[in-house]
Amino acid sequence: MSTPTSASERFAYERLAADIGALIQTGTLRPGDRVPSVRRMSTSRGVSIPTVLQAYRLLEARRLIGARPQSGFYVLTPEARAGLARHAPTVALPEPGAITTGDLIMRVLEMVANPALVPLGTALPAEELLPTRALARALRGATRPPLGGTSTLVTPSGAESLRREIAKRSLDAGDAVTPDDIVVTCGCAEALSLCLRALTSPGDTVAVEAPAYFGTLQAIEVLGLRALEIPVDPETGISIEALEEALGRTKIAALVVTPNVHNPLGCVMPDDRKRELVALLAAHGVPAIEDDTYGELAFGDVRPRTLRAFDSAGLVLTCGSFSKTLAPDYRVGWVIPGAYRDRVLHLKLATTAATAVPPQLAIAAYLASGGYEQHLRRLRRALRGTLDRFSFEIGERFPEGTRISRPAGGFLLWVQLPDGIDTVALQRHAVSRGLSVAPGPAFSASGAFPNYLRINAGHPWSARTEEALDLLAAMIAGKSRRRALTRG
Amino acid sequence: MSTPTSASERFAYERLAADIGALIQTGTLRPGDRVPSVRRMSTSRGVSIPTVLQAYRLLEARRLIGARPQSGFYVLTPEARAGLARHAPTVALPEPGAITTGDLIMRVLEMVANPALVPLGTALPAEELLPTRALARALRGATRPPLGGTSTLVTPSGAESLRREIAKRSLDAGDAVTPDDIVVTCGCAEALSLCLRALTSPGDTVAVEAPAYFGTLQAIEVLGLRALEIPVDPETGISIEALEEALGRTKIAALVVTPNVHNPLGCVMPDDRKRELVALLAAHGVPAIEDDTYGELAFGDVRPRTLRAFDSAGLVLTCGSFSKTLAPDYRVGWVIPGAYRDRVLHLKLATTAATAVPPQLAIAAYLASGGYEQHLRRLRRALRGTLDRFSFEIGERFPEGTRISRPAGGFLLWVQLPDGIDTVALQRHAVSRGLSVAPGPAFSASGAFPNYLRINAGHPWSARTEEALDLLAAMIAGKSRRRALTRG
Repeated sequence: MSTPTSASERFAYERLAADIGALIQTGTLRPGDRVPSVRRMSTSRGVSIPTVLQAYRLLEARRLIGARPQSGFYVLTPEARAGLARHAPTVALPEPGAITTGDLIMRVLEMVANPALVPLGTALPAEELLPTRALARALRGATRPPLGGTSTLVTPSGAESLRREIAKRSLDAGDAVTPDDIVVTCGCAEALSLCLRALTSPGDTVAVEAPAYFGTLQAIEVLGLRALEIPVDPETGISIEALEEALGRTKIAALVVTPNVHNPLGCVMPDDRKRELVALLAAHGVPAIEDDTYGELAFGDVRPRTLRAFDSAGLVLTCGSFSKTLAPDYRVGWVIPGAYRDRVLHLKLATTAATAVPPQLAIAAYLASGGYEQHLRRLRRALRGTLDRFSFEIGERFPEGTRISRPAGGFLLWVQLPDGIDTVALQRHAVSRGLSVAPGPAFSASGAFPNYLRINAGHPWSARTEEALDLLAAMIAGKSRRRALTRG
Repeated sequence: MSTPTSASERFAYERLAADIGALIQTGTLRPGDRVPSVRRMSTSRGVSIPTVLQAYRLLEARRLIGARPQSGFYVLTPEARAGLARHAPTVALPEPGAITTGDLIMRVLEMVANPALVPLGTALPAEELLPTRALARALRGATRPPLGGTSTLVTPSGAESLRREIAKRSLDAGDAVTPDDIVVTCGCAEALSLCLRALTSPGDTVAVEAPAYFGTLQAIEVLGLRALEIPVDPETGISIEALEEALGRTKIAALVVTPNVHNPLGCVMPDDRKRELVALLAAHGVPAIEDDTYGELAFGDVRPRTLRAFDSAGLVLTCGSFSKTLAPDYRVGWVIPGAYRDRVLHLKLATTAATAVPPQLAIAAYLASGGYEQHLRRLRRALRGTLDRFSFEIGERFPEGTRISRPAGGFLLWVQLPDGIDTVALQRHAVSRGLSVAPGPAFSASGAFPNYLRINAGHPWSARTEEALDLLAAMIAGKSRRRALTRG
């Protein structure tokens, strides 16, 4: 963990932030001035780099300073304070179309599964941040045969003990459900796939986010569906205005949306936007599949509410997972399918029949033991630290003009490289050097985001991550130079 | 286990069979004569009922005697010895059609998942016959984190250690495959579903067996496919002649077939029929999905070869499972997709992404430990005993005119009741009395087999199974009487 924990450093970052804040407010540091570098401040104050970063992040959150890649932190101008640089907005496709990026996505997914590669391209936090031992204990406990035999536990909706725990946790997300409202699935992937099948027929159009999680795009592709891209604002989530316009001119069978901790952007939709979105969907009678995979990893003081929490019509189907917070290898996810429960259960039976029982029992026992909340608090704090560190290190290494997302949760960074850099070519090159990265076009049904990368920042800073980022930066610099030469 | 194991009974059944065989060969017992009843023989010889049944089964296998329901065993006539009574052949549907039994199948599947019911309707052997403790030990072993972390094991094709063991076992089935040819799935259900999706598009026609496993029919239904029923001979499997005729007049996208230990018939296709079937499919370029779920449970001296063993074109996709032989609750199956490997892997990624890892590692460790062959030998012997016992007890209780299948493996009985008995009504009645049975029409795309039941005989005889069978027989007798009254 890069979060300061020693007694002397515990409040060091707050003192440091207060000191620099005072320098700005008194005009000692003026708009546009460079703030002392992180390394210099670390040396002069005798505190760790993570401590300085945490201080600077606090000042960033207060909109006093901002980062410029390869240059460091600067005091914000009044204009910049009014609205921080955003990603260029994505343009919605004029018409729905078949997904053209299937092969690319497949290549990305295969690469992600390659254990030889440094995992900058995956979307899993470092294993050392997960409660691997406690879960292994729970799994050992789950091998004791229950009364009535284990085969009585092989039911399509999943183990009752696990559904009870999921129902309890849903309360925190503003949703009141019973265990019977929940279907346990083979990871969130199956949940998304079942929902798509429950709501659509081949040839139908599904509204998707741009950018969107490539697994969702692939599920849409293999079901023979068409995708209509709706832009996502990096701070407030999917554009309700663009969706409304699309609903007016196209028949849309369903929307797939990630209101909490978007993948890859990391943003959380404000509650009023969620309310507005649900109202729009209800007005058009269009159901939404809510991907809440990262909902538990939002950094705010309270867990953000799900879209379902605002839905009274049963039109929102919420999908979740324990893969990002507990055990990627257990493949346990779930869906709360609202009004579509019977149809989803029917499809589950006809597709995988039931979810593996021992991993369900282990997670249920772990959750019931009460350590999950504390683990989540620690995990979020650690991920906030690793995100800060990766943002900083990327800023130090990547070319001028690079923009980095500022996630409100999770551990993924969405990085916009200067125009003209082809991240698909970069990915091929990176794979040949043992590095995995996820290129921007894999996050779009139409191959948009050619100069974007998603980078997994869920790993504590180490010699290995440093080496990987150095290598990636060198490749990008090479491509930048070649591009400049070609143009010149 | 109902197989005799005490020292004094070990060879008692062989001595008994030899004694009665001598009586028949010397003409002391003549064609049509009743053989002494099982109960009487048990008392007079001082051996257990299973021992007598095993002796009578041996004589049955030698075609010296045959059973008549509610009447006992008789010395076969020369005509009867030439060919034992078969089920009425099923008529193929004239045209392919949508599956009309979806709701019924759903009801059957839901009932199967209800642990309150005596499981005459499920297709799982009694838990006491499975190596539950050895697997629990293996699962505990699988909780030790591997080198490189568990997340490296989350791959779409499955754990390498498990695929290696499956590849080794495939050799016994006459198939030479490498671990890379195998994709591990969330039970055989996912394997079947992935194969169907790899080979078809909605609206296509799939040739299915009649009768067929209802899970397959349901998978076909939810994918929007049409089914064309091909009759299955209770001794030699699917009718190649009927399939050839169907191929001549209808465009068929794929065949789903169960050559080894058919569900519900229990038959094993002879090798020459398998060879003939593969040649026919190759001539028409039609791929086949082979359901080999019960292949390891065939009673013969050698494990029957898979259809794939005769296939050189990669047109056969073979699906298997550990649910019937090791652990129903682990949900681990696999597919060897031949020429369709990339497509199946792509679909797997887009559907469940990967299979839960700990159950895979546990099964791989159990298989590598070398106890599986011995377990299978014991399990087959036990199931042969429970099948004998259930056949006998059904014969004692069910009305005249009842015919019972003689399975070549597994633990399922396909029971033909007298004409006019509606097993769908019977099932509804049985469920209300806490009994699960699987009605014939659930095994047909078109609702055929109205007077058939599939009965799970994979449970050692006990007070509970006896009570269940008594209750079922009483219900059937009631329906028979009502039918007679209505007609009279």
